Amino acid sequence: MAAAGALPPNALQGPAIVLVEPQLGENIGAAARAMANFGLTDLRLVAPRDGWPSRKARAAASGASAIVDGARIFNSTEEAVADLNFVYAATARSRDLPKQVVGPREAVETLRERAAEGQAAGVLFGRERWGLTNEEVALADCIVTYPVNPAFASLNVAQAVLLLAYEWLAAGLDGALPTRDAFQEMDITPAPKAHLLGLMRHLEEALESTGYFRTEDMKPTMVQNLRALLQRAGFTRDEIDVLHGVVAALERQRGRRDDGASDG
Amino acid sequence: MAAAGALPPNALQGPAIVLVEPQLGENIGAAARAMANFGLTDLRLVAPRDGWPSRKARAAASGASAIVDGARIFNSTEEAVADLNFVYAATARSRDLPKQVVGPREAVETLRERAAEGQAAGVLFGRERWGLTNEEVALADCIVTYPVNPAFASLNVAQAVLLLAYEWLAAGLDGALPTRDAFQEMDITPAPKAHLLGLMRHLEEALESTGYFRTEDMKPTMVQNLRALLQRAGFTRDEIDVLHGVVAALERQRGRRDDGASDG
Repeated sequence: MAAAGALPPNALQGPAIVLVEPQLGENIGAAARAMANFGLTDLRLVAPRDGWPSRKARAAASGASAIVDGARIFNSTEEAVADLNFVYAATARSRDLPKQVVGPREAVETLRERAAEGQAAGVLFGRERWGLTNEEVALADCIVTYPVNPAFASLNVAQAVLLLAYEWLAAGLDGALPTRDAFQEMDITPAPKAHLLGLMRHLEEALESTGYFRTEDMKPTMVQNLRALLQRAGFTRDEIDVLHGVVAALERQRGRRDDGASDG
Repeated sequence: MAAAGALPPNALQGPAIVLVEPQLGENIGAAARAMANFGLTDLRLVAPRDGWPSRKARAAASGASAIVDGARIFNSTEEAVADLNFVYAATARSRDLPKQVVGPREAVETLRERAAEGQAAGVLFGRERWGLTNEEVALADCIVTYPVNPAFASLNVAQAVLLLAYEWLAAGLDGALPTRDAFQEMDITPAPKAHLLGLMRHLEEALESTGYFRTEDMKPTMVQNLRALLQRAGFTRDEIDVLHGVVAALERQRGRRDDGASDG
């Protein structure tokens, strides 16, 4: 292999590849192989349909079995992204979600910037047959969509992983990253998703008793809109702590008033 | 698919994909599928090992069977490139050949320039097991080599075709993504500051009676932190409307409880 293939000495931590309910072991293996080809290592599987471990996945990995063996299994997408600061959802489908949509090349630029700041990032890939649900896409910060021929747009999940991994490595070979200046000194690392989910749940519980969710029918959409909004804000851990305090204060007021306590 | 997804009206003739003695029908089919995904059509096979037509190739093409069915079969690589004006050989191996070596992104730039001049171009891909011979590489004008992880450099032939085809389409779109309109037209313009200030005031008033601002001394800093956080989130008008509703709901709960009303 020519020098062009050498990984940079200070290689950044690549994004986690999260396959949501993958159906075929062959595709998991092919995705692992693609990851190995381009220097990614963190494979996460949410409830693989045919169970785990998978003989077919190992066979299809074709030498990249270390990545298959090291894959972590999760019961839900929420758990799979809990420790990540920044998440893309790979989807071609139109969604009514206020999320930025970028191509894979732009996505890896952002992923590299985040990695350079020490953030943990990942990319969600959906089921072979029907991709990601709106709820899963809502867990992500942004959407990555591939440029494809609209007349034949169905991209196999392992191929989608391959293209992302390829762009990741290709971008890394292009030399030094543009550093952000003063802005960088303020820590605006988005909190790990577990913190954000904690805030979402806290707020939803607080709203439950207020009649905010007018009917049970409307609730799922309202919850989804709220979550999309909080997701999009990219709050840090500190900011989320502040917001927990705000919600708790607004909740507490009920107890105070019930006790007849007055408080200026 | 929205207009943004359509291939450019004056789409250039993409390069011919020449598979030299491909061994597995599955790989031929997967290469055809990758071509279809990214708008390439001219598939040429040099002496496929297991004969032709191939049921496995058609199955693996997964809907791109037109490309498989339209593939032209040649007895030699020389014949396969006979009508082409310009040829790349895809190879990772070091060769003692005086040929320019480029990555796939650079290669498609050249391919597009050539196509724009009306030249017919193609890319040679070697056998699964041992690639291209020196004689075959010598038939090409230049070499295209993929950036890969040197620790795991073996790229499947269909994946190599996929990456080339992807770069071809990506270069043609010049950054424009074929996403559907709904995505990109989602307005994430931050609201005018007056709206944001309205939300800040609403929240501050709601918090006032809860004891959130513990002392008058602490209040200015706490207000400033809250405002900084809301500012940074970059909320849209619609999002600010939602947040007004959230704060109002949490406020209302006091009134309800005072009235003894209970509400699910």
